[in-house]
Amino acid sequence: MKVGVWFVGALGDVATTTVLGARAIARELAPTTGLVTARDLFQGLDLVAPADLVFGGHDVREGDPVETARDLARKGVLPHRLAEDPDLQADLRAFAERVRPGVAAGATRLVRRLESDAARERDRLGPAAALAALRADLRAFRTAERLDRVVVVAVASTEPVPELDEGALETEKAVRALVADERRKAEVPASLLYALAAFDEGCAYVNFTPSLGATPRGMHEAALAAGVPHMGNDGKTGQTLVRTALAPMFRERNLGVLSWSGFNILGNRDGAVLDEPGANAAKTTGKDRVLGAILGDGLGSSLTRIDYVPSLEDWKTAWDFVHFEGFLGTRMHLELTWRGADSALAAPLVLDLARCLELALRRGRSGLQPGLACFFKNPLGTDEQRLPAQERMLGEWAEGLRGGQRT
Amino acid sequence: MKVGVWFVGALGDVATTTVLGARAIARELAPTTGLVTARDLFQGLDLVAPADLVFGGHDVREGDPVETARDLARKGVLPHRLAEDPDLQADLRAFAERVRPGVAAGATRLVRRLESDAARERDRLGPAAALAALRADLRAFRTAERLDRVVVVAVASTEPVPELDEGALETEKAVRALVADERRKAEVPASLLYALAAFDEGCAYVNFTPSLGATPRGMHEAALAAGVPHMGNDGKTGQTLVRTALAPMFRERNLGVLSWSGFNILGNRDGAVLDEPGANAAKTTGKDRVLGAILGDGLGSSLTRIDYVPSLEDWKTAWDFVHFEGFLGTRMHLELTWRGADSALAAPLVLDLARCLELALRRGRSGLQPGLACFFKNPLGTDEQRLPAQERMLGEWAEGLRGGQRT
Amino acid sequence: MKVGVWFVGALGDVATTTVLGARAIARELAPTTGLVTARDLFQGLDLVAPADLVFGGHDVREGDPVETARDLARKGVLPHRLAEDPDLQADLRAFAERVRPGVAAGATRLVRRLESDAARERDRLGPAAALAALRADLRAFRTAERLDRVVVVAVASTEPVPELDEGALETEKAVRALVADERRKAEVPASLLYALAAFDEGCAYVNFTPSLGATPRGMHEAALAAGVPHMGNDGKTGQTLVRTALAPMFRERNLGVLSWSGFNILGNRDGAVLDEPGANAAKTTGKDRVLGAILGDGLGSSLTRIDYVPSLEDWKTAWDFVHFEGFLGTRMHLELTWRGADSALAAPLVLDLARCLELALRRGRSGLQPGLACFFKNPLGTDEQRLPAQERMLGEWAEGLRGGQRT
Amino acid sequence: MKVGVWFVGALGDVATTTVLGARAIARELAPTTGLVTARDLFQGLDLVAPADLVFGGHDVREGDPVETARDLARKGVLPHRLAEDPDLQADLRAFAERVRPGVAAGATRLVRRLESDAARERDRLGPAAALAALRADLRAFRTAERLDRVVVVAVASTEPVPELDEGALETEKAVRALVADERRKAEVPASLLYALAAFDEGCAYVNFTPSLGATPRGMHEAALAAGVPHMGNDGKTGQTLVRTALAPMFRERNLGVLSWSGFNILGNRDGAVLDEPGANAAKTTGKDRVLGAILGDGLGSSLTRIDYVPSLEDWKTAWDFVHFEGFLGTRMHLELTWRGADSALAAPLVLDLARCLELALRRGRSGLQPGLACFFKNPLGTDEQRLPAQERMLGEWAEGLRGGQRT
Repeated sequence: MKVGVWFVGALGDVATTTVLGARAIARELAPTTGLVTARDLFQGLDLVAPADLVFGGHDVREGDPVETARDLARKGVLPHRLAEDPDLQADLRAFAERVRPGVAAGATRLVRRLESDAARERDRLGPAAALAALRADLRAFRTAERLDRVVVVAVASTEPVPELDEGALETEKAVRALVADERRKAEVPASLLYALAAFDEGCAYVNFTPSLGATPRGMHEAALAAGVPHMGNDGKTGQTLVRTALAPMFRERNLGVLSWSGFNILGNRDGAVLDEPGANAAKTTGKDRVLGAILGDGLGSSLTRIDYVPSLEDWKTAWDFVHFEGFLGTRMHLELTWRGADSALAAPLVLDLARCLELALRRGRSGLQPGLACFFKNPLGTDEQRLPAQERMLGEWAEGLRGGQRT
Repeated sequence: MKVGVWFVGALGDVATTTVLGARAIARELAPTTGLVTARDLFQGLDLVAPADLVFGGHDVREGDPVETARDLARKGVLPHRLAEDPDLQADLRAFAERVRPGVAAGATRLVRRLESDAARERDRLGPAAALAALRADLRAFRTAERLDRVVVVAVASTEPVPELDEGALETEKAVRALVADERRKAEVPASLLYALAAFDEGCAYVNFTPSLGATPRGMHEAALAAGVPHMGNDGKTGQTLVRTALAPMFRERNLGVLSWSGFNILGNRDGAVLDEPGANAAKTTGKDRVLGAILGDGLGSSLTRIDYVPSLEDWKTAWDFVHFEGFLGTRMHLELTWRGADSALAAPLVLDLARCLELALRRGRSGLQPGLACFFKNPLGTDEQRLPAQERMLGEWAEGLRGGQRT
Repeated sequence: MKVGVWFVGALGDVATTTVLGARAIARELAPTTGLVTARDLFQGLDLVAPADLVFGGHDVREGDPVETARDLARKGVLPHRLAEDPDLQADLRAFAERVRPGVAAGATRLVRRLESDAARERDRLGPAAALAALRADLRAFRTAERLDRVVVVAVASTEPVPELDEGALETEKAVRALVADERRKAEVPASLLYALAAFDEGCAYVNFTPSLGATPRGMHEAALAAGVPHMGNDGKTGQTLVRTALAPMFRERNLGVLSWSGFNILGNRDGAVLDEPGANAAKTTGKDRVLGAILGDGLGSSLTRIDYVPSLEDWKTAWDFVHFEGFLGTRMHLELTWRGADSALAAPLVLDLARCLELALRRGRSGLQPGLACFFKNPLGTDEQRLPAQERMLGEWAEGLRGGQRT
Repeated sequence: MKVGVWFVGALGDVATTTVLGARAIARELAPTTGLVTARDLFQGLDLVAPADLVFGGHDVREGDPVETARDLARKGVLPHRLAEDPDLQADLRAFAERVRPGVAAGATRLVRRLESDAARERDRLGPAAALAALRADLRAFRTAERLDRVVVVAVASTEPVPELDEGALETEKAVRALVADERRKAEVPASLLYALAAFDEGCAYVNFTPSLGATPRGMHEAALAAGVPHMGNDGKTGQTLVRTALAPMFRERNLGVLSWSGFNILGNRDGAVLDEPGANAAKTTGKDRVLGAILGDGLGSSLTRIDYVPSLEDWKTAWDFVHFEGFLGTRMHLELTWRGADSALAAPLVLDLARCLELALRRGRSGLQPGLACFFKNPLGTDEQRLPAQERMLGEWAEGLRGGQRT
């Protein structure tokens, strides 16, 4: 079995860390720490082995994954011994050969500034032509590498929230009409085109970002029509992960959360992109929603900020201050500081999702996979935000695939 | 229906806060914030109403609950308006009338120093005579207040771990023999006598402390023989609560916890007692065990300290530093500071447990109630330490009582 | 000796705490903790005793200081026993009688909404008439209370940064012309009028806020012409105090501060006012400037945010993350959480400044008093921001007044 | 000019980092970040250049500094590019050639376990013979490398507090008698012999550890008699540095520190040694003393703990909780987390002290150098613990040496 993983945003830190890590595991140079799919829960489920994954992708930038990996090692995100390993460097170079120019419609100014000439050329195409080009790349990847199946994973920089009429993408028909209409070109964000290309080529799709991707109802229709599984949005890697583990405790103890204030500072490209208000709003809105969903009336107010602090590089640092009320109204608090390497947190989940979506595709599942909610800040197809409940859903999802039966 | 709640340690901060709180709720002067039994989960389960509880207890000290409440208000643990409320003060005074001298066998030096003359006199009795005296007090309470049922709740200061032969308390017979043997008087800790008195008088029993109480197997036999339910040990109010909510997350994400270091500082009598090494060991051992139980091999090392810092009074402040390893061995950390008023955290759980044990007794249940594990640092009768799993157990326990059936 | 302290913003939390505290000290109901002027440094300097202070002031709102004090006690900012003391309540009521309606030109929308009818009426006057009215109030206060001297202290809510031409207030003449010009009424912020009224009535003046007040050069001229001392801006009470104590350490150890990120959350009226962008900018700009002044080239970047979180009330909570670089470029960090009651931190400094400015006025000093820099976030008349250096300046300033000589 | 730096504990992390750093600076591969002596304050003072330093030393262990440096790079304490630089590796190898076996009298069990055969042999000698051997090594170093002057710097693991009669070392005569008395061999800790060897060979001496070294009055006599300068004890690198910067602020603001609680966790050899109670006491006692010295009556209680948490390796993590009292008794707090690489913090100070002591020796100064107090947790010859005051003392000390005059 050979399975392709096609990244949208293939030359970023997350994709590089994912490829390096998968190859390091395949070459037995690293353990599977951080991989949820390495847990007992998934034993006997014939997930594709990391060694059987082939990586490629789109990117609007140019870049050298070998240098990116070295840079990540310098920043403490990866061990030097892996970044300097000649075999792994060869693997990264082979991966780089499989990266094709992407499209950047609807991206932030910063992303636009970084665009390669090849990507700029593609951006001159209308949506329909761009979609065709993306599809052709996916087909070429599958053929050249003789792949059984392909999973497309979006790990590109956050897009600003697009200004689209409510209902513009309510049906697949509406989506197709929009893409076909050259005059409405400016309304079609790149993330939607990538997702559509995946569906149209029979690939599974994962949206690891808060960008639009396959969020609209019309896109769900398209996935079902294509018979492919997909899931999103926005990988749950750090502060939100901890919040969804802790927040249920307050509810279960009947403690009133008076306010939950959280501040994130980070310095990687993701942070730089979030320095633009549109992208920032796309991100923080999702983060805030999570607490409300879990605490309901038990939440007085919440606040989430993300700020760009260049010196922190990939080390996202988050401070949460939870002000809560106990028996007889006594006010207490809990403070939490999280300091994690963003790419090292995201990469194993990307591998997990690629493995899970591939299995779902192989088993003939199509449409949203809410059983994978635990991996996302804004899981599509479910309102469940509590980590413990999502863990149970994951177990049931895995159990459901064990028999190989369609659902 | 009238239900008695009999405290072991009736004049301490926790008991005072519990009584004041229950009466404030009964008089509609305070909401039920912090009460787990006020959640929807327990709706329709005919738990005894706070207004139907009558409070009494044993204590080795003298004390005035009205003054204690005022002091707690000054320290920010309670609102002044409740501590100064004339009706509630009358309630506290009535409660104080129902407090009888306790026994202090096996207690710390500090507790010994605080003992009243009446308690000292009782301590001169041998175990068998002391047990008889405690039983008589329980009987008198039940009769005088015309109570349907009584729940005994231990909230006294932590005893040092007693030096008892392994197996000394393996059967009820052995327990009875020990208590009957005047020469082995020094080996019988007060907490065991209180628990035995409860069983012998047909009362339910809760051990909210880490002291021996009903922990030995022989005591479980005694409870079953008496047909009464009981549960313990050591209320899960703060740092351990948060740990059992968070630790499963690391396991579920397959992250290796390299070390989990925690430091507690507090300044109330509980803290002063824990300044004695024996009592401190009794407490920290339990706290450390919790992480090992949840993380298993995934835990490198753990460390828990409790220090007495008088100025903090009832405001227990805890710092946790969790050092963990993610994908490709990248090391990250999470820091957590918890600042809560110990008595305000404990009191609602004491009320919850009194209500739950009363219902279990009424429904004819006997022996350990592991379904109530979520309330304890060292839940008896189960190895489950993960808060989410304990929450499910609680739901099942409540469901089991809903029908009123015996188990 | 009788000395008047006239507040701008007399019905706010800071003024109430100041009056209650001064009276509590005078009545020997509280110690002088927190008063810098109670240190040995000031011994033998015949500062006015707290008992000799008489309080009055302007406010644009209505309010009852007795209720405000009770509310502050409920929030844990003051002890209940002081808020409930009948003598102190009488003192607060006497103070309330001496409060006159203020003006609100240039204030935030929130302040405008809270305005009393009397204040609204005054706001209809042009600047010249308003100035005359404020002056008349000061004169009446001095006469009625037979005061030797008066110090005006601005503790009102932060004004947005006024939009004034550069140079508009470069000379006293320009200031007077502006105030006289009815058509430019909208350009004259209330804080400037209050300061001018103080100068014109021979009062010393302290700007404890970041509002304009006596900041412009033309106002310095006016103070010198009037022969009165003044100082500002913006009391240094919490996060900035700690920053100016810590930042010099990094410079002295030749450590590079890569980034210093700070987040403040608070929930009192000050916080609500800062929820308006203009006022927020006025505040955070000053906070950021401090680090640059101390660290110079040694500071990579800095970030300061203030957010309004209602549940925190007066308890300003601040988190600082200092990312720094040591030997051979190794990157380390320091994290700091400060949790203080804003009014309790400000009030003693207000008393200190009233006492110091009164002495300066009595000794015939006029103009800026940079020796008092340690009390301010943006000390006028000096670039020195390092707390230790400011402490030395304070010692020299006190020494200079010891002899009673003019400077 | 060629100057020798002779380490006691030459194969530890601090010495390795110091040598690597000095050579990296000499070869212009690293900037002087972290070096206090690179500040303007020292400009024009003809301190020895890092390039003119030659390194050697004693150690009771065997070890390879090249591997140690690589290991430190892997742990994030040093950049990989320096640890892998061939020239610097050659420098480290040359340094390793100049390391001689040390003595371990009075050391912890852990240090004893690590001892090399050569060191064990030396330990069989009596104190007098050991002293002679150490002196011979210093002489040989000086001759072989044609050094103008030598500074001995103790960076060895902490010794337990030795059990010596009070007054046993009050005079140089007493010290000499003790060393000469073969029967009292067990009473003479190695650190004292190293210091004596330094004095006897005309070397300056720095005690960067809390061990005895030259602390006793008799040793001060010996240094004066030998005409050499010395200073100690215990480098101020992390938590204590921050404490001495912050604590004066509380005093200057007349705030009462109710309690100051601090917890250190670390995982390097230093931490492992401190896992033995004797060594731990030697360390924490000093740390606690600092706060008392600064805050005096203004300090309610203080607490300092150091715990060994292996996973943290060289990254010492410290949490301080400062509970303080402000105006009218309102209680507030400040929390501080420090996370620094111990060796990276110590190494530049070691270089600073070597440079400063060399200059003092060259200028003919002898005895204690309290002007260098800012570098030490327990500065000898002064009670001044406040960092800002120590900074002034350092400026005066530097100024005093500028002219080259003797004092």
